[in-house]
Amino acid sequence: MASTFTPLHDRILVRRTEEGETMRGGIIIPDSAKEKPQQGTVVSVGKGKSNDEGKVFPLDVKAGDVILFGKYSGNEIKLDGEDLLIMREEEVLGILKS
Amino acid sequence: MASTFTPLHDRILVRRTEEGETMRGGIIIPDSAKEKPQQGTVVSVGKGKSNDEGKVFPLDVKAGDVILFGKYSGNEIKLDGEDLLIMREEEVLGILKS
Amino acid sequence: MASTFTPLHDRILVRRTEEGETMRGGIIIPDSAKEKPQQGTVVSVGKGKSNDEGKVFPLDVKAGDVILFGKYSGNEIKLDGEDLLIMREEEVLGILKS
Amino acid sequence: MASTFTPLHDRILVRRTEEGETMRGGIIIPDSAKEKPQQGTVVSVGKGKSNDEGKVFPLDVKAGDVILFGKYSGNEIKLDGEDLLIMREEEVLGILKS
Amino acid sequence: MASTFTPLHDRILVRRTEEGETMRGGIIIPDSAKEKPQQGTVVSVGKGKSNDEGKVFPLDVKAGDVILFGKYSGNEIKLDGEDLLIMREEEVLGILKS
Amino acid sequence: MASTFTPLHDRILVRRTEEGETMRGGIIIPDSAKEKPQQGTVVSVGKGKSNDEGKVFPLDVKAGDVILFGKYSGNEIKLDGEDLLIMREEEVLGILKS
Amino acid sequence: MASTFTPLHDRILVRRTEEGETMRGGIIIPDSAKEKPQQGTVVSVGKGKSNDEGKVFPLDVKAGDVILFGKYSGNEIKLDGEDLLIMREEEVLGILKS
Repeated sequence: MASTFTPLHDRILVRRTEEGETMRGGIIIPDSAKEKPQQGTVVSVGKGKSNDEGKVFPLDVKAGDVILFGKYSGNEIKLDGEDLLIMREEEVLGILKS
Repeated sequence: MASTFTPLHDRILVRRTEEGETMRGGIIIPDSAKEKPQQGTVVSVGKGKSNDEGKVFPLDVKAGDVILFGKYSGNEIKLDGEDLLIMREEEVLGILKS
Repeated sequence: MASTFTPLHDRILVRRTEEGETMRGGIIIPDSAKEKPQQGTVVSVGKGKSNDEGKVFPLDVKAGDVILFGKYSGNEIKLDGEDLLIMREEEVLGILKS
Repeated sequence: MASTFTPLHDRILVRRTEEGETMRGGIIIPDSAKEKPQQGTVVSVGKGKSNDEGKVFPLDVKAGDVILFGKYSGNEIKLDGEDLLIMREEEVLGILKS
Repeated sequence: MASTFTPLHDRILVRRTEEGETMRGGIIIPDSAKEKPQQGTVVSVGKGKSNDEGKVFPLDVKAGDVILFGKYSGNEIKLDGEDLLIMREEEVLGILKS
Repeated sequence: MASTFTPLHDRILVRRTEEGETMRGGIIIPDSAKEKPQQGTVVSVGKGKSNDEGKVFPLDVKAGDVILFGKYSGNEIKLDGEDLLIMREEEVLGILKS
Repeated sequence: MASTFTPLHDRILVRRTEEGETMRGGIIIPDSAKEKPQQGTVVSVGKGKSNDEGKVFPLDVKAGDVILFGKYSGNEIKLDGEDLLIMREEEVLGILKS
């Protein structure tokens, strides 16, 4: 029943970490913060970026990675009723491990 | 009687998913949504993007693929009385499978 | 008596399809449409685009092709009393066949 | 007495076609046209454009060619009392032959 | 308990030097200075920048380096309750040694 | 006593032709002209432009060349009490010979 | 006691020539000049610019060189209580010798 979405090229699909959750790494977004959290989990990734000779380089982030990204990164989409983000790997600031 | 349209290079021709349809993947655009759906089906594709040596790389999306794309992607054209979109593959966010 | 115009490099000379004509592919521009039709016929083409080594790649569109292009594409010129357009092949969205 | 001007690299020196002249190709600029004609004759050309390895590629336009160019192309200069234009070959739309 | 953050590609994680601290190199930011200090210590670095062939070049700055950077460099993030900066190595002006 | 100035890379040092002088090529700038003349003499040149492999290509203009350049070209500097211009060779339109 | 600052890549550290000093090359900035002098001495330089293959090309300016630079070049920093500038070699107009 669930649909799958395959990001194209160097794009990744990201599930934003909910504000109410205890975020990995202890990132706490105070109630007064008006900006949405910039943490999320990678759901799926594209096959990679191609160079001018057609060679494809797989991405460095993988499904399951907990990532940080800039406030204005990505396109918001609704998939299976859930709000998700599609962004380019280039917009990912780094990977969090706890 | 029907005419065919062949997009040039890395462009693709897209039929936008109608708002009334049940979209694949369960994407529901509420009535109050003022923006048109960002889902569509690829009708035809260009032969690909050329590099600086003239080598052509076929596109990753194919006719029939159900794709997601950004709200402001593509040029709107009318073909055989139907509203369609022409966009570059680069503007495609990813492919939906159900 | 007629003069010939040879577009330079990757440029093409285009005769816009008149609003009164029945356009190929059944594209009908309603009277209320304030924008001029975006369909035309290629009159002549440049010898192609050169890469950094001086190698020339012929264009994909040829004289006689019926093309679609964006509303703001091209430079308008008057040639032998006729209004024509000069645009780069890159501005051509695709080729129509009926 | 006359001085010579050698355009640098991919630049060309152009003598604009006077409004009173019968232009080649029958281009007539009506009196009400506020914009200057976009036709001219190439007076001299630079030695060509260099690539990153220092190889020089001669230009496609030659002295004597009648060319069309965009309204805002080129730098205006006064040479031997005459108003001329210096522009890059890239700004030339094409070559007119009658 | 502490989480680790691995910056992606050519990004680095930076701990800004507190205003109250005696900065290395004798940089004194007067009280009246409204701008935050532009000095910090590198906490962790990405694996490097890749070229078009996929070859990775390690960064020149290392964890522990005291660096200077422009006032508007980097994205601010909160990690384990601490305000940190993520920036690209390109934004680092240089390395301070005392 | 006189100092020498060596422009860096593809930059050149230019002495603007004074308005009162009879310019080579008969360029006369009428008194009412509010814009400064665009003619000058090359005083010294940089060693050339480097490509990505570090190979240096000497410039096409030499000290002593009389050049034309755009109105807003170059940085104004004062050297040994004289107003001079530093510009990139790319900003030179061409070379005048009489 | 003095700290050292090593500019990164193609950046250089510059000590601006004080307005009161007799500048090399006889550059005199009149009192009425509101803009700061554009002359300085190179204090230290980065190791050079890298190309896409990781090859490093040392800079053309060296510590001790007296340089000219544009009015708005560089980032201002305070080092050991002294106001200095960090700029890219690309912003250096040329080298003064007396």
